[in-house]
Amino acid sequence: MKILVTGGLGYIGSHTCVELIKAGHEPIAFDNLSNSQRSVLERVQRISGQPLAFIEGDIRDGAALDAVFQAHRIDAVIHFAGLKAVGESVSQPLRYYDNNVTGSLALFDAMARHDVKSLVFSSSATVYGDPVSVPIKEDFALSATNPYGRSKLIIEDMLRDLIKADPSWRIALLRYFNPVGAHESGLIGEEPNGIPNNLLPYIAQVAEGRREFLSVYGGDYPTPDGTGMRDYIHVVDLAIGHVKTLSKLATGPGIVTYNLGTGRGNSVLEMVRAFEQASGKQVPYRIVARRPGDIAACYADASFAESELGWKAERDVAQMCADAWRWQSLPK
Amino acid sequence: MKILVTGGLGYIGSHTCVELIKAGHEPIAFDNLSNSQRSVLERVQRISGQPLAFIEGDIRDGAALDAVFQAHRIDAVIHFAGLKAVGESVSQPLRYYDNNVTGSLALFDAMARHDVKSLVFSSSATVYGDPVSVPIKEDFALSATNPYGRSKLIIEDMLRDLIKADPSWRIALLRYFNPVGAHESGLIGEEPNGIPNNLLPYIAQVAEGRREFLSVYGGDYPTPDGTGMRDYIHVVDLAIGHVKTLSKLATGPGIVTYNLGTGRGNSVLEMVRAFEQASGKQVPYRIVARRPGDIAACYADASFAESELGWKAERDVAQMCADAWRWQSLPK
Repeated sequence: MKILVTGGLGYIGSHTCVELIKAGHEPIAFDNLSNSQRSVLERVQRISGQPLAFIEGDIRDGAALDAVFQAHRIDAVIHFAGLKAVGESVSQPLRYYDNNVTGSLALFDAMARHDVKSLVFSSSATVYGDPVSVPIKEDFALSATNPYGRSKLIIEDMLRDLIKADPSWRIALLRYFNPVGAHESGLIGEEPNGIPNNLLPYIAQVAEGRREFLSVYGGDYPTPDGTGMRDYIHVVDLAIGHVKTLSKLATGPGIVTYNLGTGRGNSVLEMVRAFEQASGKQVPYRIVARRPGDIAACYADASFAESELGWKAERDVAQMCADAWRWQSLPK
Repeated sequence: MKILVTGGLGYIGSHTCVELIKAGHEPIAFDNLSNSQRSVLERVQRISGQPLAFIEGDIRDGAALDAVFQAHRIDAVIHFAGLKAVGESVSQPLRYYDNNVTGSLALFDAMARHDVKSLVFSSSATVYGDPVSVPIKEDFALSATNPYGRSKLIIEDMLRDLIKADPSWRIALLRYFNPVGAHESGLIGEEPNGIPNNLLPYIAQVAEGRREFLSVYGGDYPTPDGTGMRDYIHVVDLAIGHVKTLSKLATGPGIVTYNLGTGRGNSVLEMVRAFEQASGKQVPYRIVARRPGDIAACYADASFAESELGWKAERDVAQMCADAWRWQSLPK
């Protein structure tokens, strides 16, 4: 299948392009390069041994999208493009809503115009807000605690409205937990702008010596070691989940929603130790006050994706850290 | 003050332009004429005895908005522009989200670019979803039951996020109950496209003989006469509420939310009888099954707007019907 991948040169997008090519699909990466590097294109090609089509463009540009859909017979769209930094979304909400919500609407409009109605949408476990319990199932109540999360929830709601109006769409909402790691080649991975927002890239920069120590926000949570627990999932597992979801969409119209996580929670200190082991480096840390809005533990019930897609995350924390470190320490 | 009025030639927009001029303000109507008539401009001018500036344009067109803000020193924006038919929103959700959400974002972006940070937003009592009780207070839980309602709730949420990021904005969210009636001159009023979605325009067309009878959806609600009760508010009272809100915004930055309603519920059959009396015409009706999603009673607690704005609705149901009938029966 010919798959348009918006945000295709980004962190998850680039790994998904690799897995799409591996599975015999033909991805076309569409990316405005606002938070990705053109060099990723050549790296994906090097990993895959095959060319990757790339179009530089912004999903808010309807004419650019029209040109893509006219030039290529697209079978399905995997929609990653969007801004993703929670803190930034709080200080720049209009920018986030414009990129994420207006952008997604422009994309869905273009898809409807060109009768391309198969869509995998990159949602997030953030749509569960402050969940009542863990593990989190797909039918838990949804809410948003910041503009980034709200943008994901709004887009999910719009897609649920869309399929009610036109049941011929095939839509998958994939709610990611905490994607980490990198391709085992060390050629592609996460490239945070400035200070990393997420734990593992931060740990990696401390291990590398670029930052002095890790601040651990809260050591008194009701968890085994007192630090917060999250469901870290290897980005390659996540990418494979997208390929499996495409096969599911091919079975018929409707809307499906899957948690993509491992189903396990790991604490901050467990991740620190795993990274120290993988890298052979020390990761100094300091326990500081909790951050407002953080929750003690967040991990998926991942059984629905397993039963429906025949997919589960295979890569463990040791491999996540080893791959993240290889990516971090190889020359770019 | 120079006030940009988006949707300024629409039903509520045109009445608000009249009241703005009356209060000494200078409105500039901005409208894409998708659901309004150019002739309204001349009619507002005839009522006001003063010119009304008009710019034909779409709020989704950032360049058109830039031109307006460059050409005029705008003090505040009253934002009415948007699609408003609930049923249509269910069948065309992307069109509704595009017009209402993308359009509003483009407007707020343009305001931010030109440092115009005073905004009155046309919200709706629909954001209360299925309220737990009546009368409805501004702090009730919010939810959406259809894409139209969701578009209003999304925009409210975005504005609450916006003011957290930049507390220098002055924002009022006005939640309208059921606007009816017309200007007493008979020159402007509601011009529904096709079959009216709302009760009073439908009753008016039955009274006029254009439609055979009124279908009353549900005669077994737990209300005095078994028919649904709503809070009908005269559009001129509503328009005056906007002028009062502008004065409130002038007192300082922040976000305020007001119900604009009368605080009273009237049943469908009460409205039928009032319209028969006002028009001297028969309004035949038939009680039919309830519509899914309808609620028994919905009316405002309007005390907050009264204490904060010194505003309350003055025009009674008899006047609403008399003015609606005058508008309906005068030659256009």
